[in-house]
Amino acid sequence: MKAEIINIGDELLIGQVVNTNASWMAAQLTKAGISVVQTTTIADDDKAIKKALDQAFVRAQVILISGGLGPTKDDITKKTLAEYFDSKLIFHVPTYEQVEKIFAARRFPVTEVNRQQAMIPEKCKPLFNKNGTAPGMWFEKDGKVAVSMPGVPFEMQAMVAEQVIPAIVEHFNMDAIVHKTVMTTGMPESMLAENIKDWEANLPSNVKLAYLPQPGIVRLRLSGRGKDRQKLKAEISVQVDKLKKLIPEIIFGYDDVSLEEVVGQLLIKNKKTVSTAESCTGGYIAHLITSVPGSSGYFEGSVVSYSNRIKTDLLGVRTETLEKYGAVSREVVIEMAKGAKAGLKTDYSLAVSGIAGPDGGTKEKPVGTVWLALAGPQGTEAKLFYFGEHRGRNIRRSALAALNMLRLKLEQ
Amino acid sequence: MKAEIINIGDELLIGQVVNTNASWMAAQLTKAGISVVQTTTIADDDKAIKKALDQAFVRAQVILISGGLGPTKDDITKKTLAEYFDSKLIFHVPTYEQVEKIFAARRFPVTEVNRQQAMIPEKCKPLFNKNGTAPGMWFEKDGKVAVSMPGVPFEMQAMVAEQVIPAIVEHFNMDAIVHKTVMTTGMPESMLAENIKDWEANLPSNVKLAYLPQPGIVRLRLSGRGKDRQKLKAEISVQVDKLKKLIPEIIFGYDDVSLEEVVGQLLIKNKKTVSTAESCTGGYIAHLITSVPGSSGYFEGSVVSYSNRIKTDLLGVRTETLEKYGAVSREVVIEMAKGAKAGLKTDYSLAVSGIAGPDGGTKEKPVGTVWLALAGPQGTEAKLFYFGEHRGRNIRRSALAALNMLRLKLEQ
Repeated sequence: MKAEIINIGDELLIGQVVNTNASWMAAQLTKAGISVVQTTTIADDDKAIKKALDQAFVRAQVILISGGLGPTKDDITKKTLAEYFDSKLIFHVPTYEQVEKIFAARRFPVTEVNRQQAMIPEKCKPLFNKNGTAPGMWFEKDGKVAVSMPGVPFEMQAMVAEQVIPAIVEHFNMDAIVHKTVMTTGMPESMLAENIKDWEANLPSNVKLAYLPQPGIVRLRLSGRGKDRQKLKAEISVQVDKLKKLIPEIIFGYDDVSLEEVVGQLLIKNKKTVSTAESCTGGYIAHLITSVPGSSGYFEGSVVSYSNRIKTDLLGVRTETLEKYGAVSREVVIEMAKGAKAGLKTDYSLAVSGIAGPDGGTKEKPVGTVWLALAGPQGTEAKLFYFGEHRGRNIRRSALAALNMLRLKLEQ
Repeated sequence: MKAEIINIGDELLIGQVVNTNASWMAAQLTKAGISVVQTTTIADDDKAIKKALDQAFVRAQVILISGGLGPTKDDITKKTLAEYFDSKLIFHVPTYEQVEKIFAARRFPVTEVNRQQAMIPEKCKPLFNKNGTAPGMWFEKDGKVAVSMPGVPFEMQAMVAEQVIPAIVEHFNMDAIVHKTVMTTGMPESMLAENIKDWEANLPSNVKLAYLPQPGIVRLRLSGRGKDRQKLKAEISVQVDKLKKLIPEIIFGYDDVSLEEVVGQLLIKNKKTVSTAESCTGGYIAHLITSVPGSSGYFEGSVVSYSNRIKTDLLGVRTETLEKYGAVSREVVIEMAKGAKAGLKTDYSLAVSGIAGPDGGTKEKPVGTVWLALAGPQGTEAKLFYFGEHRGRNIRRSALAALNMLRLKLEQ
C-alpha cells in the first residue's frame, strides 16, 4: 500500500510557513502501515493541482490532500477537484448546517461566501469537519482513493485520525509496519556504522535500518514489515536487544525520548539531586535539564563560571590549580565539580571546562578540547573529549556528553 | 525564474522529522526573486530520485536538492545523480582533505566509508562544505541547473546562502532585489501590524513588506525590486528610518542579527560586564549570551538559582523576603539582581524569577508570570511580564525580554 501527500498553498512555497501537515500526515499513514512514497507541495493553481494528481495516481493507491478549501478567492481546490473528477457541485445540507452552527456560536451572520462552502462535488463522499466549516471530500477512481481536507492543522488532524485512516484501513487490505527508534549519543554516524555493521548485515530481510543523525545524537530506526504485528514487535525487540549488547554505553533511550528526560527520570527514580558547574557550555546543560517539566524536583541550580575569578570565588577552585594546569584541565574541572557539589549541596555535580572556539585554541589544547567531571557520592571522575571546531556543536556535544556521563553513573 | 525543491530522505516520509529544509530553501529562493513552483519529498530510492528530477526539469530552471549524501548505505543520492547526469565518480582531493581535517580535529581515524565521501561525479562542479564532509554538487543540463546538498540543515544552509544563491543570480543574470530585515522583540505580530499600518500603507509600490514571526521575535522584511541596486538601497533606508521613529523600543537590530549579539556589541562598546541570576530561565540567558563568540570579554558568569536555597546561599536573597513575597516577586528578583552584581562583581546583572509551567501557577500568579530585574551602575529596576502557558516559550520570551531590558539601558 502506497500513499502520497499533496499540500496546497502559496504560503508554503515562499517559505513563510513550515509544512508540518506533511510530516504529521506521513506519521499517521506510516503508523497505519501505509508507505508514503512522496509528498508534494504546490501553489493554489488549478493546473498544478491536476498535474500533481495525475502523477500521484501513477505512484500511489491513496492520496491525501490538504489546503485550499477556505472561503476566499485564492482557495480553488474544491472547484479543481470537481473538474478533475468530472463532477458538478451540489448543495450539501448537513455541511450548510455545520456552517450555520459555527457562525451562530461566534454570533456572525452567514454570508454568501460562507454558503458556498456547502457546495460539494456530487461524486465525493463528504467527511464531516467537527472543527471548521470546510468538509473533507473522499473520491474514488479505479479502485484508488483521494481525500481532500482543510489545511488548518487541527481541522485536518481530527479528520485524518478519526475518519480517513479507519476508512482507508477498511477499504484496503494492508501489511502491518512496526517502528522502533534507538537513541544514541557520543559516537559519529560513520563510526557507529562500522561498529554495528555485522549486526546490520544480519538483520532479517523484512527489517530495515535507517541512520537519523542530529547534532550530537544518532537515532537508529528499525522498521519491520509483515502480516503479524505482534510477531514483528517481537522480531524487532530481539534485534534491539542484540544492539544494546553491542553498544550499551551510547544507547540512552528509545522512541525520541531526550537525554535530559532520561537523566531526569533516573534522578527521580534514585531520589538524587544534581547541579552543574559550567564554563564553556555557559549554562546550556542547566538549560537542557530545566527544559524538562518537573526538573525543580531534582535540579538545584548551577554556577556558570565563565571567568576564572568566578571559578575561584563561587566554586572554590584554587588559584594555584588554575595557574599550574590552566582552566581547561583535569585538575580544574575536578575542583569545579567538587566545589559545586559542596556549595550547591547536591548528590551529583557535573562540571565542564573547555575551548568552545572559534578562538582560544593552542597547539596542545585545540578548539574543541573539553574536560568533563562528575562528582558523586562515590567520588569524582573526569574525562577528556575532542569535539571539533564549531562553537555551537562543541557546546551541544559537551552538554550531551556530560548528561550521558551522569546517565551511565545513575544506571550502574 | 522558476525553481523546484527536492528533499530526499526516508525519515521525512515517515513523519519522524519535520521538513524544515523545504521552507528554509523556499524562503532563500523567494528572497532572491525566484518563484518556487513545487517542493517534493521522496525516499532514498534511485528510481524516485530520477523520476522527480525528470518532472522537475519540465517545470523549473533551478532545482535544489537536499539529503542522502551521508556516508552510510541508505544514502544513495550521489550515485544516483552520477547515473542521471551520465557521469562517472572520480576522487576529489580537496574534499578528501576536508574529510581528513574534520576527522583529525576529533581524533578519529578516517575509515573507508568516509573516504568514499571524496568520490564525486566528474560532470559536477563541487561546492565546498565548510561544516561537514559531504560536498555539494552543481550540475547543468540544457541551460538549467540542479544543485545537490547535504540534508543536515546547517551544512545545507551555509552552502545555499554563501555559494548557491549567488551562483544562480550570476548564472541567470537576474533583476536586482534588495532586502532589509528589521528585528523586533516584545510585541506580538497583530499589535505590531496595528502600530505601523499607516507606514505600511504608504510604502512605495516596488517595496514589499513581509512579517516573519518567530517565538518572541517578529522580523519585518522589506524587499525592493528594480534595476538600480544603489537607488533601491537608498529607498529602503528611508523607509527603515521612518519605521525606527515609530517603534524605537522594540527594534533591536537588522538583518538577522540576534539580540544576544547586539547586547554583546553594546557591552564591548561601553566597556561593561554582565552576569545573570536565573530562576525560571534555568541558564538559558547565560546560554544565549555565551553562544556568541568572544562573549568571555564581557560575560563573567551566572548563578542559576533554581531552588530557593541557592537564592539565599549564593545570591544573598534574604529568607524573610522569600517568605513574605514568594520567589516570584519584585522584591526577590531585585535582591537576586543585586546579589549577582555584587557576588559576581559585574557592572550589570540580569535576574529572572517566574513560573515557567506547566505546574506551579496560582490564581494570583498564573503560569507565565515572570519578574525581571536589571541591576546596574545607576541602581536596580524591575518589570513584570505575563507570557502565557507554554513552558518552552516562557523561557524563551523571558530571556529575550531580559536581554532587551539590558539593550535599552546600554543604548541610553
